[in-house]
Amino acid sequence: NVTAGKPAFVAVDWGTSSFRGWLMTADGNALAETRGPEGMLHCATAGFAPVLADHLARLGGMQNLPVLICGMAGARQGWIEAPYLHTPTRLDALHDGAQRVDTQGDVRILPGIAQADAAAPDVMRGEETQLLGVTEPGFTGLVCIPGTHSKWVWIESGSVVSFTTYMTGELFSVITQHSILKHAVDHDAPSPAANDAFRDGLQRALDAPAGLTASLFSLRAAQLLGFQQQADGTARLSGLLIGTEIADAGSRYGTRHPVRLIGAGALKDLYASALAAAGFDVTIVDAERASQHGLTKAAIHLWGAQFT
Amino acid sequence: NVTAGKPAFVAVDWGTSSFRGWLMTADGNALAETRGPEGMLHCATAGFAPVLADHLARLGGMQNLPVLICGMAGARQGWIEAPYLHTPTRLDALHDGAQRVDTQGDVRILPGIAQADAAAPDVMRGEETQLLGVTEPGFTGLVCIPGTHSKWVWIESGSVVSFTTYMTGELFSVITQHSILKHAVDHDAPSPAANDAFRDGLQRALDAPAGLTASLFSLRAAQLLGFQQQADGTARLSGLLIGTEIADAGSRYGTRHPVRLIGAGALKDLYASALAAAGFDVTIVDAERASQHGLTKAAIHLWGAQFT
Repeated sequence: NVTAGKPAFVAVDWGTSSFRGWLMTADGNALAETRGPEGMLHCATAGFAPVLADHLARLGGMQNLPVLICGMAGARQGWIEAPYLHTPTRLDALHDGAQRVDTQGDVRILPGIAQADAAAPDVMRGEETQLLGVTEPGFTGLVCIPGTHSKWVWIESGSVVSFTTYMTGELFSVITQHSILKHAVDHDAPSPAANDAFRDGLQRALDAPAGLTASLFSLRAAQLLGFQQQADGTARLSGLLIGTEIADAGSRYGTRHPVRLIGAGALKDLYASALAAAGFDVTIVDAERASQHGLTKAAIHLWGAQFT
Repeated sequence: NVTAGKPAFVAVDWGTSSFRGWLMTADGNALAETRGPEGMLHCATAGFAPVLADHLARLGGMQNLPVLICGMAGARQGWIEAPYLHTPTRLDALHDGAQRVDTQGDVRILPGIAQADAAAPDVMRGEETQLLGVTEPGFTGLVCIPGTHSKWVWIESGSVVSFTTYMTGELFSVITQHSILKHAVDHDAPSPAANDAFRDGLQRALDAPAGLTASLFSLRAAQLLGFQQQADGTARLSGLLIGTEIADAGSRYGTRHPVRLIGAGALKDLYASALAAAGFDVTIVDAERASQHGLTKAAIHLWGAQFT
């Protein structure tokens, strides 16, 4: 195969607060990587084109290669808007919604997906590309993408049918930084592990997910009364919030479907443990590989003819 | 009645971030009031005695009257600790736990109540005095005290049997100030009213209380997609959080018992509306009157002989 190992395009995951770019082969391997903190929020004032040019230079000056971007760069407040596709929508048609940017070279941004349902409105940008990356065209099942705004996605025969976003990661952050529970966690501790405290919090939430706002105060009271230790607070809070998410998702989508978990690092391990405890059959996929694969599949649709 | 209208004692509700004092008659009427921002957090560094002396002076220099305090001044990090009574505990025996402060005059602090149950640990300080104020010695039923940390209390024959604290008010505050939902609320709007948006959020939470962390993100997505207006965000968020609390409390304690609602201002109105929508039979009591009545009942136990 004469194309193996040859740079074919540049893949970019351009989020709210980070830039990640890879020099990709046509068969989906990353030859080089560049990353930085110049996310959409930064570029909305400082500009997008210079940041991209800088990262392309870091990848070896590949200005002649096409660039495919996913994520918040395509939001209304981003570089150019790549309007949302609406559910139900086929993942293998994502590339049809790509918007070409009026800039040097061939630079395109993939669209997000919206669930324009007044009873369950929801949006994603970036995750749709990971979904494309981890599913076959005929895939039916669930995908869980934990994070600041965790996504649960129900896919039927390769189409995104419905999805639900949970503010799990963001609640963890604001609660530990700004609420009375800042006294109930150890801010110097490493990321929470799937330890006994995590499992206790998780089980409490799985058993009584409607009681989250009471369980949060209870975490503080348990320490005041000597039943629990501050060192366990972070893991326990993490278990409570993740358990609340999983309990609700399980009641929406059922637990009998296999779940593909797209994650990285400690959070991936916490969710893998929690999903297993809740009775899900889980397959784990690395988050960056999911983005790279999704961008590659879409790039082949857009430029496959010139990759050969 | 020769004692009517005569100052008998000074009642103080000394919270985390506020001081409220009243010159009281033996039959529970407030003759004068003083209030300030010198709560427990302030006094823990600046001292408690000077703040009390200053407020006594504002009440007319009544240094010879006994002073009864409830609230966080009795916490471990307060003036002196008035150790928690433990559930189940009779409200008309609260005064037995009062701690006398080593200071000028007869100054005592009422204890809080702890639920020292490893499966449902909880604490209150200040609310126990309001409970005493709004219940008869043989009262059986529920009391709801909305606020930063809302309390639901189950009382049987005048004893606090169990209670649950919800972080409702604090979550509202940190979410509107520090999360992505700060863009979904109108920060210049007045306090949320029990309007259509409030009722929508309330009903959504009553129907699916386990879905709170999804409903929060949905509020943002609904505005992005044009289904909802930012002007309604505050009321809708308030409905979601209050509804989640009431749904969980209803499933814990049942909805067939009458509820005494201790509240003030806009929050009292929101809860009265929400409790009625959830099927509770509600009696409303003003929060300051509840504190004054509770402090008076306890003061009569402590000093009744000298009030005549």
